[in-house]
Amino acid sequence: MTSIIPRIEAIVGQEHLSTAEEDLLCYAYDATNRHHRPDAVVFPANTQEVSAIMRVANEFGFFVVPRGAGTGMSGGALAVRGGLVMIMTRLNRILSIDADNLVAEVQPGVVTGHFQEVVEKEGFFYPPDPASALYCTLGGNVAECAGGPRAVKYGVTRDYVLGLEVVLPAGEVITTGVRTAKGVVGYDLTRLIVGSEGTLGIITKIVLRLLPMPEVVSTLSAVFTHIRDAAKAVSEIVRSGLIPRKVEYMDQAAMGCVEDYLNMGLPVDAGAMLLVEVDGDRSSADTALQHLRAICEGRGAREIKVARSEQEATELWRARKAISPALFRLGQDKINEDIVVPRSRIPEMVEWIDDLRKSTGLTVVTFGHAGDGNIHFNIMLDKRDKEARNKAEAAVEELFRHTLALGGTISGEHGVGITKAPYLDMELGSQEIALMKRIKAAFDPKGILNPGKIFRMS
Amino acid sequence: MTSIIPRIEAIVGQEHLSTAEEDLLCYAYDATNRHHRPDAVVFPANTQEVSAIMRVANEFGFFVVPRGAGTGMSGGALAVRGGLVMIMTRLNRILSIDADNLVAEVQPGVVTGHFQEVVEKEGFFYPPDPASALYCTLGGNVAECAGGPRAVKYGVTRDYVLGLEVVLPAGEVITTGVRTAKGVVGYDLTRLIVGSEGTLGIITKIVLRLLPMPEVVSTLSAVFTHIRDAAKAVSEIVRSGLIPRKVEYMDQAAMGCVEDYLNMGLPVDAGAMLLVEVDGDRSSADTALQHLRAICEGRGAREIKVARSEQEATELWRARKAISPALFRLGQDKINEDIVVPRSRIPEMVEWIDDLRKSTGLTVVTFGHAGDGNIHFNIMLDKRDKEARNKAEAAVEELFRHTLALGGTISGEHGVGITKAPYLDMELGSQEIALMKRIKAAFDPKGILNPGKIFRMS
Repeated sequence: MTSIIPRIEAIVGQEHLSTAEEDLLCYAYDATNRHHRPDAVVFPANTQEVSAIMRVANEFGFFVVPRGAGTGMSGGALAVRGGLVMIMTRLNRILSIDADNLVAEVQPGVVTGHFQEVVEKEGFFYPPDPASALYCTLGGNVAECAGGPRAVKYGVTRDYVLGLEVVLPAGEVITTGVRTAKGVVGYDLTRLIVGSEGTLGIITKIVLRLLPMPEVVSTLSAVFTHIRDAAKAVSEIVRSGLIPRKVEYMDQAAMGCVEDYLNMGLPVDAGAMLLVEVDGDRSSADTALQHLRAICEGRGAREIKVARSEQEATELWRARKAISPALFRLGQDKINEDIVVPRSRIPEMVEWIDDLRKSTGLTVVTFGHAGDGNIHFNIMLDKRDKEARNKAEAAVEELFRHTLALGGTISGEHGVGITKAPYLDMELGSQEIALMKRIKAAFDPKGILNPGKIFRMS
Repeated sequence: MTSIIPRIEAIVGQEHLSTAEEDLLCYAYDATNRHHRPDAVVFPANTQEVSAIMRVANEFGFFVVPRGAGTGMSGGALAVRGGLVMIMTRLNRILSIDADNLVAEVQPGVVTGHFQEVVEKEGFFYPPDPASALYCTLGGNVAECAGGPRAVKYGVTRDYVLGLEVVLPAGEVITTGVRTAKGVVGYDLTRLIVGSEGTLGIITKIVLRLLPMPEVVSTLSAVFTHIRDAAKAVSEIVRSGLIPRKVEYMDQAAMGCVEDYLNMGLPVDAGAMLLVEVDGDRSSADTALQHLRAICEGRGAREIKVARSEQEATELWRARKAISPALFRLGQDKINEDIVVPRSRIPEMVEWIDDLRKSTGLTVVTFGHAGDGNIHFNIMLDKRDKEARNKAEAAVEELFRHTLALGGTISGEHGVGITKAPYLDMELGSQEIALMKRIKAAFDPKGILNPGKIFRMS
């Protein structure tokens, strides 16, 4: 790196490149809690600098790992083979909000929650809402195709990206997609890059579609004695033709650890709680709530609440939002998966997980986006305990096998990264993987961009 | 071909391959009315046969052109370099409709309109509605990423494809995407293949997302003296936060030729007519209609009608649907473009087109999906008249230049094919085109699948 550092400093300025141990440590980890120390970190200011850095990387053949806020759940931002971590947070401007066309242009380092706040002030709505919205960046969301609870009705990040500006591994700057509502000229590079986990190019600009803000949002919670009944209520909601914007659930273990953490009076003896949010105009939201209440009652819910104010709604959601931090009361390490099954198979899946919990004795907590079959499955453990770790890894493999047998997928919104790379060939065939590798080579013939992600390291 | 024919007959059976002149002529054209005679046509029955044929094509290096119903508007199904046209209409089964998960699996030869009818009978809704829905196939829709009027609210074919089965040019059969509501494992091959115009692989199975059927659908028509006022009403509708499911317009020339054709009492002296359709539950549809009426009145609509029955609505839409056939009263040949501009630029664009009509003296008719800025621009002429043809071609180039200057795209839903291939580099840069060609090579190293499409022939 010693001959390269001055070249990169010349591009970004000395103060925006670091090889200091404390900086390398800060950018060695992400939300997976795995650590891989990069050789240097760089903070480019604009597309031109990103491009110039990639030209140097391409010339010298060193690895570059793009990074937003490091909130990813699959290790996408980790320098698993060393090299340069490129932190995109200085590209943090909202470039335009076009109210006439419901289109916004942003830089990748804009924090998702900030963007949502800004567009909401102008009467617009940006639906994707990953749990880390207060910290994560839109660039990271695009790279991972982030989802969130509102995906049930509104889809995921993919569904809001109209176009991109991307720096390719050899430094070329390309523009993809359109700034209009429709467009089909050439291959869909935009959606190919969405969810490509920083392996095909570095996103430097994003054109996003906005929606008008819905008139009202209402929340209902329903407590069930048996988780299977909650799961059946979800299936029935889907079949009924209602499209709530969120259908979340938490199991007994999740409620238990949140209660322990917040003392908010959760029904810790219950099997599961559903939280459902609907939106639209006043009358259709009210109608939907009535239907939802009837479905939950029919499935034997022992308690149903409808929030009568925004404050009450916030209180209902507080438990759900606290799960992730609360989990660490049950163990210092977390193995965290985000499988998806067809929505009708949720009852079966939650029962299967219950059996797995009992048969393995592992501390398993599940919660998640029941409305689209996306279950966040967590095992809490001490990773230094080799036996627990082996048992947990075997359980995860079982989980994936069962998920796929039910017609599901091993990742709904977290991506493959390094955490699921060893399991990629459980879901994809060798021909599909070979084709993806040819696509990778079409973008990155030298393999310098974010190596070791998605595909198992060779 | 003489040594190849027996090989292919052995795969599909003699009766499903033809080199008879009358068959070659039947499959030499599509909706562009251009003719390119293939060397043979084949009708495979299933994925295995498609794969076996591609293995032979790959071995001998001959061209294969997949074809649905031949309703495409950009020449995607034409054998411009000869070879084998592969007609997918025998793969015409709806494999499953999963009511619990709102997912259907279909073969590519299923006719779109038939599929819509079948799912509607079960209470579901498949929104993409290309004008050719009664004839076109779902496979062709996926290959071209077909749109239609309902795209304003519901998006295009891309937004409904969850996964695919695809035969690659060398014969490998791959499965892409998921059968669940979400999924982010590996590169998004599904959306890369959607809209790739039959150049990357042959679609043999499609997994489609369904929606619940909306409770009511209501239609409003508004007649404007000046087209600019109609266009301004559209911009205002978009800005207002209303999301109608269709916002269509027809200009004076379009109304004139439809009236000539159907004698239905259209206001032929008016500058333009808007047709707007809303859906949802009864009360939100009614509220939306009131808003729409107020906007149209505010923009000086001289006549506004709301259909009071399904029959009245059908009558309102009859004029819009008759445009395409009626156009041929104005000239035997049609040059047909489907540009898109940002919705706020529609008023400017329609005025610009009016000026173009006056300055060139060409017979220009416009109509289309105003709600997403997608304008169908038609020049009617006699192509044997060389002068008219040159003038028309110059006008199209001007149109594209102006569209791109306004931030638009040269194709919203018809694709590039052969008709727009000469203009591709007006919209895309050389680096983007080079990358797309590398992706093409990653799928089709020998260049045997649907050659001469999207990219200018070399």
